[in-house]
Amino acid sequence: MPLDIEEFRKAGYKAIDRICDYYYSLQDKPVVSQVEPGYLREALPAEAPEDGEDFDTIQDDYQKLIVPGLTHWQHPSFFAYFPTACTFEGMLGDLYASSAANPGFNWACSPACTELEAVVMDWSAKLLGLIPDFYNTSGIGGGVMQTSASDSGLTAVVAARSRFVCLHPSIPLESLIIYVTSQTHSLGAKAGLVLGLEVRVLDVREEDAFALRGETVRAVIDQDKERGKYPFVLIATVGTTSSGAIDRIDEIGEVLQDFPDIWLHVDAAWAGMTFVCPELRGPGELQAINKYATSFCTNFHKWGLVNFDASTLWVRDRKLLTDALDITPEFLRTKHGDEGTVIDYRNWHLGLGRRFRSLKVWFVLRSYGAEGFRRYIRKCIELNNLFASYVLESPDFALVTQPSLALTVFRLQPETEQPLALQALNDLNRIFYGRLSARRDIHLTQTQLNGVFCIRLAIGAVRTDESHIKHAYDVLVEEAGQAIEAWKQTKQAAMD
Amino acid sequence: MPLDIEEFRKAGYKAIDRICDYYYSLQDKPVVSQVEPGYLREALPAEAPEDGEDFDTIQDDYQKLIVPGLTHWQHPSFFAYFPTACTFEGMLGDLYASSAANPGFNWACSPACTELEAVVMDWSAKLLGLIPDFYNTSGIGGGVMQTSASDSGLTAVVAARSRFVCLHPSIPLESLIIYVTSQTHSLGAKAGLVLGLEVRVLDVREEDAFALRGETVRAVIDQDKERGKYPFVLIATVGTTSSGAIDRIDEIGEVLQDFPDIWLHVDAAWAGMTFVCPELRGPGELQAINKYATSFCTNFHKWGLVNFDASTLWVRDRKLLTDALDITPEFLRTKHGDEGTVIDYRNWHLGLGRRFRSLKVWFVLRSYGAEGFRRYIRKCIELNNLFASYVLESPDFALVTQPSLALTVFRLQPETEQPLALQALNDLNRIFYGRLSARRDIHLTQTQLNGVFCIRLAIGAVRTDESHIKHAYDVLVEEAGQAIEAWKQTKQAAMD
Repeated sequence: MPLDIEEFRKAGYKAIDRICDYYYSLQDKPVVSQVEPGYLREALPAEAPEDGEDFDTIQDDYQKLIVPGLTHWQHPSFFAYFPTACTFEGMLGDLYASSAANPGFNWACSPACTELEAVVMDWSAKLLGLIPDFYNTSGIGGGVMQTSASDSGLTAVVAARSRFVCLHPSIPLESLIIYVTSQTHSLGAKAGLVLGLEVRVLDVREEDAFALRGETVRAVIDQDKERGKYPFVLIATVGTTSSGAIDRIDEIGEVLQDFPDIWLHVDAAWAGMTFVCPELRGPGELQAINKYATSFCTNFHKWGLVNFDASTLWVRDRKLLTDALDITPEFLRTKHGDEGTVIDYRNWHLGLGRRFRSLKVWFVLRSYGAEGFRRYIRKCIELNNLFASYVLESPDFALVTQPSLALTVFRLQPETEQPLALQALNDLNRIFYGRLSARRDIHLTQTQLNGVFCIRLAIGAVRTDESHIKHAYDVLVEEAGQAIEAWKQTKQAAMD
Repeated sequence: MPLDIEEFRKAGYKAIDRICDYYYSLQDKPVVSQVEPGYLREALPAEAPEDGEDFDTIQDDYQKLIVPGLTHWQHPSFFAYFPTACTFEGMLGDLYASSAANPGFNWACSPACTELEAVVMDWSAKLLGLIPDFYNTSGIGGGVMQTSASDSGLTAVVAARSRFVCLHPSIPLESLIIYVTSQTHSLGAKAGLVLGLEVRVLDVREEDAFALRGETVRAVIDQDKERGKYPFVLIATVGTTSSGAIDRIDEIGEVLQDFPDIWLHVDAAWAGMTFVCPELRGPGELQAINKYATSFCTNFHKWGLVNFDASTLWVRDRKLLTDALDITPEFLRTKHGDEGTVIDYRNWHLGLGRRFRSLKVWFVLRSYGAEGFRRYIRKCIELNNLFASYVLESPDFALVTQPSLALTVFRLQPETEQPLALQALNDLNRIFYGRLSARRDIHLTQTQLNGVFCIRLAIGAVRTDESHIKHAYDVLVEEAGQAIEAWKQTKQAAMD
């Protein structure tokens, strides 16, 4: 029984009320869903109903069947992965976008979609301190919204390959290489899989805090040229997933000056948002990004207060995208498109149709204001510094790397008479992490850094405050004690 | 000034009310936005505000600045492109999804996202009459939601290339070919651009109603093998964009039996939804799809009542996707993922993060029910038949091809003493279409079929009824008269 307008009004109010209830009760819920695989299939009929159902029943089922199966990324004790932003402003922006329902693939099919995206990308570029070369008003560079950093990265790699192949038509695809580091997000490996191209993983060292150095890049290029391989894109990272490492964009950019056909894509999916704060632009290598990056990506939907999806990609030269991706069949031709007076964003990304994503970014930027945005970023970093200070003061925990922005990577490392070997420490920490994973009231994820098993705590939920950091630390201490006991027993059992 | 929960409640109610107003007033608005390029940049400040603004102002600006820049795809007189579905149920599903804000890249990070998608894809498969091989419960085949048919198609092509390269590691990428037809959606050409692979455009003939035939496929494969080229995927279409043509999947599938390393992807982005009606499965080649297709795509967000984005992709063997796309770094490893007991959808698509799209499909399928869905599809087709009957009865218009489902392709072809030559007819129809494009109360798009300039009328907005079809025809008659006059004057002027 499809909803008519008045029924929608009633159902819409109810949905809004339910979302209010959700946020009032959020911190009393377990962070991690406790359901077992298959729980929902058991609870649902095997096929769609023949006759329409009452919408009240459907909304009630959302509460009854779906909410228990959610892991609550907005829970103030969610410290896993990286944060996924969610704000009321973002939700409402998305709601309006859904109601307008335009697949804004070109300017003409719904001008506001393209126009607002072009403006909001410029607002964002200014807010983050990118130079005017990247603004849409430059007419040369420009910005576009993509689904995720993987899509932004893939788009950059595609355009880089296209440019390289145009420059060197006789070089076979099999000889092309994508450069990433061992710390690059999986988007690098995935771009290689998608395009069927070789990916070379460049080394980073612990003593460089896992940042890629210029000298490594130069040495590897030399090696590859000698063996007849052609690097055409390097994906550098500002704020790696594992440890928040920041590649030395200054050094890398300097080296790549000698290799102008290698595209430098800077993936700052998570950390890029910190550029709203002037004091964080230096450590984040913004100056070098402005000087050297061919393309730059950061995600509003991670640490930028905007609901998924809102990955922002800027390029220094928009023709690099459109040369690679422009297809304009007759049924997509328009007067303004033919005249070149408007942006047709379909030629700036891999698909065709696209959501009206700029609306939610516009809502959030206006409601928070630049200053509100900065306040939020700084608060997250302060909370992380607080957490790191607990770790530093503790006899049982140790930092694995220096805290980066709002991410701390640490491990359990109790004081013992003899320092524990790596393997023993890893065993202990796996037990520890296993215990943490079973907790309902906190959620963290693990990683590895050069063979060291470690635990990540990433801060970003809007409602996280000092009390949650304190609670997180208390939980860690409690579970650490238990883990050490369990580990000693395992060791003892092995010796008996 | 970020919204707190009670402010959100107020703002949310207001947004719902405004959406109600929008739908009450929709048919009184011009279908096509009348703004000029750059209108919004002029109206907006050059950068984000320093301090947060009042949310009432922001919502008011949406009405004042954005709505006039929208082309109203839900307007009952919108007949351009293909429809983009929008229902209140879809909006509310998306609203709940935004409020939960989970990037459901694997099962563990929010089980309900994966579980509901797996179930809803099976509901949809059954609703459309796909055989159990494609159900997720088969454990072998399965379904996944993508952003658009371009993404679904690209995913299929990537997996096809990956399989082919595994089977034939010594064949260089430069020798691989993607098969499409001259009627394939731009997604075929774009997949070639993205992957840097050659695309061969197979001929289709007017006498076959622009459908690809098996004999063409066989002849082309033979030619290509001879010249050392290797087709690895064929993108066939059920319901082409230009004319709604339906490729002969039965014949193509039969031919490809002899070439098992060529992947058959069937793109039924628009027409696939008609499979909800048993009487439309035969004409749509469903039996052959079930027998031969390696992958099959249709879009709920086109003609399927679900708001963009909701492109559904089924594969006969899920390992073909995961073999091509699986990357699992340490920070994405989970207990259930390691055990293989759950689906990790990140390995079924090109990116990593994904929206909780199944929710809106679930809401729509339940609220409409299978019968309500069928009623909607049948109504659209009846309206199109009505429109086609007007064209057939008219002395001034002619069908260019037989009407296909809810799409009519026609042109102005007035009765003249001497039949007009193609060029003259095209000139006349360009003038005619130019006049139609200037109308505010109706929106259609143009296309070309084998050099014939024609006009498409596609039906699908939920609120379109007979009166709108009648009105559309009246507008066409009016503009046709004017176009003929203008064209005669041009001709006269040329002769003078």
